[in-house]
Amino acid sequence: MTLTRKRAAIRIRVFAPGSVGNVGPGLDILGLALAACGDRVEASWDPSKEIVIADPGHPSISTDPRRNTAGLAASEVLRRAGQAGRGVRLRVEKGLPLSGGQGGSAASAVAAAVAVNHLLDVPLDRMALLEACLAAEEAVAGRHADNIAPSLLGGIVLIRSLDPPDLVPLPVPRNLYVALARPEQQLRTMDGRAVLPGLVARDLAMYQAAQVGAMIAALGSGNLRLLGRALDDRIAEPARAPLLPGFEEAKAAALDAGALGASISGSGPTAFALVGSEAAGRRVAEAMATAYRRAGLSCQTLVSKVDRKGARLES
Amino acid sequence: MTLTRKRAAIRIRVFAPGSVGNVGPGLDILGLALAACGDRVEASWDPSKEIVIADPGHPSISTDPRRNTAGLAASEVLRRAGQAGRGVRLRVEKGLPLSGGQGGSAASAVAAAVAVNHLLDVPLDRMALLEACLAAEEAVAGRHADNIAPSLLGGIVLIRSLDPPDLVPLPVPRNLYVALARPEQQLRTMDGRAVLPGLVARDLAMYQAAQVGAMIAALGSGNLRLLGRALDDRIAEPARAPLLPGFEEAKAAALDAGALGASISGSGPTAFALVGSEAAGRRVAEAMATAYRRAGLSCQTLVSKVDRKGARLES
Repeated sequence: MTLTRKRAAIRIRVFAPGSVGNVGPGLDILGLALAACGDRVEASWDPSKEIVIADPGHPSISTDPRRNTAGLAASEVLRRAGQAGRGVRLRVEKGLPLSGGQGGSAASAVAAAVAVNHLLDVPLDRMALLEACLAAEEAVAGRHADNIAPSLLGGIVLIRSLDPPDLVPLPVPRNLYVALARPEQQLRTMDGRAVLPGLVARDLAMYQAAQVGAMIAALGSGNLRLLGRALDDRIAEPARAPLLPGFEEAKAAALDAGALGASISGSGPTAFALVGSEAAGRRVAEAMATAYRRAGLSCQTLVSKVDRKGARLES
Repeated sequence: MTLTRKRAAIRIRVFAPGSVGNVGPGLDILGLALAACGDRVEASWDPSKEIVIADPGHPSISTDPRRNTAGLAASEVLRRAGQAGRGVRLRVEKGLPLSGGQGGSAASAVAAAVAVNHLLDVPLDRMALLEACLAAEEAVAGRHADNIAPSLLGGIVLIRSLDPPDLVPLPVPRNLYVALARPEQQLRTMDGRAVLPGLVARDLAMYQAAQVGAMIAALGSGNLRLLGRALDDRIAEPARAPLLPGFEEAKAAALDAGALGASISGSGPTAFALVGSEAAGRRVAEAMATAYRRAGLSCQTLVSKVDRKGARLES
């Protein structure tokens, strides 16, 4: 029984990076992982036969495992591994803001899924983990993988298809940095989705497709100017910008300060800009923050490389 | 006056390759040049002050320079070079079928534009030539550059934007071949455009964008299987296929015979398939031709590499 006692004491701690979803024109299909921020989940066996959220990471996050992406993802992993009904205890450390547009719900789901998979001695492969997280994310933020996929795999990821999942990891230029500015406002993911148009003009759809294509070509060739020109979202950004006071001014300030391009991270309220150096990132982040403050909103900034590792064990 | 007499005798002969427009999901934005076929235009000064179409290349093509893409492109080049009113004589050799979906009108325009530009000692750069050809193509087939751009530049080209033109040349995998099957039927480009939907569902638009992105990622990484999976057009092909008897059967036959993917070339009637070797190309082309013949249509086939040079002087 040594093994059982030993396993009962195991604590698995996993870090999953934050992410920018909807990278520019890539609504629901293009996401990138952020090296500078993320969530952590610690998982251990629990004598109960339930998922126990011992710490949800923030007083506003539910400790009901059916309303918590970490709990939902843990439960999905157990089910897919044929271990439903086992008790797992989760402690979440939120490094990412709630409802910020930095992929916080996805990172918690990914960290929990990877942690529970390790607790079970890794029965599930990455695609099965992705599907478990997708089911969890779907319950709180709609069925899309543009935060989950980069948080799980790292890098910049194109979601070619969801059913079945077909993920395309893209080349990441060495000198690419992301500047983020998060104004002090809330926008629920569901509200950010409700304003999206149901139909788009065919010409606009193909323009958007051309921008996605040009971003991917630019990532491959390292042509950062082209990457910036192609960061031109004409479907989601025009619909969401009116919900985000200060965003237009912050975007203009980012471009003035030398950003390659800028848009809304996920459904917001965080704004992001792509830049070609860390110094440019600091300048651009500060310019965005100043614009938000002028609009009466306090603002936090971050400059990050693209994370290349994805979710990983810390113990 | 030696120079004048010498120049009066100059004949410039230019070859411009045929092309596949609308490559799969890339409606209006993705085209590839075909090494195995093209049009030729010979240009010389004419003592008149007009564009003279001495040979339109086919009895069905107008000799009125205002209704002929070679004539229109020649006229645009003269105008943009500040030489409007000079007389130019054009002889067109059609290597490409009329209304076939192999970029015949674009190739004639490109060959004429490049030839007249050489007659004038190359006053226009490639972007100005592109705009001249675009104006010519617009008059007969709508404002799109997915045939003109590859015919002019060679290779596989993404049209990121038209106004102003921003063309992105894409990597071409070494072992990529194109199999073409042209059934004996006519479909005017304008009719092929009239059936396109004016509006598309947002989710469909983003799926299409993801396929364009995945094709470009696959060209960069040389992942031909991904290239084939992403050759999935859900906007133009479903609208045009009903106008093209035998197409669905030919596509199914191509996939059965080992094609990576298949779709309609331009607005048809030519069908094309992407393949990973010349031998596969022959097999796939024959399978498509057999399917068309079973549907009661005679059919011509072609297997081609991607042309990498674009329009070029032959004298």
